[in-house]
Amino acid sequence: MGFFITFEGVEGCGKTTQLRLLKERLEADGEKVVATREPGGCPIADQMRAILLDAGNSAITPLAELLLYAAARAQHVQEVIVPALERGETVLCDRFTDATVAYQGHGRELDLDVIGQLNALATGGVQPDLTVLIDCPVQVGLSRALSRIEATSGAREERFELESVRFHERVREGYLALARAYPERFVVVDGSGDVARTEVLVTAALSGRLQGGR
Amino acid sequence: MGFFITFEGVEGCGKTTQLRLLKERLEADGEKVVATREPGGCPIADQMRAILLDAGNSAITPLAELLLYAAARAQHVQEVIVPALERGETVLCDRFTDATVAYQGHGRELDLDVIGQLNALATGGVQPDLTVLIDCPVQVGLSRALSRIEATSGAREERFELESVRFHERVREGYLALARAYPERFVVVDGSGDVARTEVLVTAALSGRLQGGR
Repeated sequence: MGFFITFEGVEGCGKTTQLRLLKERLEADGEKVVATREPGGCPIADQMRAILLDAGNSAITPLAELLLYAAARAQHVQEVIVPALERGETVLCDRFTDATVAYQGHGRELDLDVIGQLNALATGGVQPDLTVLIDCPVQVGLSRALSRIEATSGAREERFELESVRFHERVREGYLALARAYPERFVVVDGSGDVARTEVLVTAALSGRLQGGR
Repeated sequence: MGFFITFEGVEGCGKTTQLRLLKERLEADGEKVVATREPGGCPIADQMRAILLDAGNSAITPLAELLLYAAARAQHVQEVIVPALERGETVLCDRFTDATVAYQGHGRELDLDVIGQLNALATGGVQPDLTVLIDCPVQVGLSRALSRIEATSGAREERFELESVRFHERVREGYLALARAYPERFVVVDGSGDVARTEVLVTAALSGRLQGGR
């Protein structure tokens, strides 16, 4: 079986960039790497992603949103993640089950037991071997995310960027609580500096963990 | 609280037509009626419906499909059904939780306990006061459904019509098992005749039940 690494953190923390940089480093070492993301990661789950992220769908209820994330995850795990792991490849995934705990559980304050049951159902028990939490203050991340959205789509904010700062602070606290609860699976890296500094910190944090995991 | 009636049955059984005819009869009697359907029934759930019914999405996994139905149902119940019932209106819904038991449980043979838990979660416990099961032989229903699809969209079959006859037979048996399990909620009507005959049977079956329900 391959090795499964997830990247987590608040909006604008830099996880997507760091995932890409890790992919390049691993491939330079000759590894086969599948880089994917949630929600989405395959055509059917991407159709669900479009519903989840569309700012026009702000009337979606928290429960419908939670179930839609679970549906997209079930498709993605069975179609992409499990086959890649069975081929012995390394899978890097941008957000996974911890994001649901942080956003829907801590952010939207839905029942954490229900979320745990849905995560277990949707994944069929597949869990990351390692989770890289890139932590940064909410205001730092949001200002990065908003500049990026303005640059790419002309100030059209996406649905999660429209949430209150307090919401994003609950999400950040939720992630940190997960890292405390699962210290063997999580590495927490400070993402408040620039890309190069964060890359150094990620590389340092993973050096022992990647070797040890095989 | 209003009265909540669901219509169920295999493809082509005639439930959609009979729902419309009942709506007209109730409105002629001065009732306020909301006619709706699953999957869908509101703009966000209709986006999920489009994914579920698209013949191009045949790679959707049974579990992802089940969770996507639950997501659409959660949105529909909270946005449409509960508000209408709270206004004291009669709600007629074309397919509901029993369809998930029949199609995903008996048809796809997914775990019935998991389906029961997801139905309870998605509905928040809202159950029909009455369920009209229009029963007919699978071959009769499928030949009606296929003629209708050919007439309206030029022979482009939708995803559920592409399933095997055996699948639809399991669905029919699943519905009949539900009717046996919940005899106080279900009325079973023979839908193998023409529209007018089925309407007579539905009217006869409901006459005592609609009065008694208030």
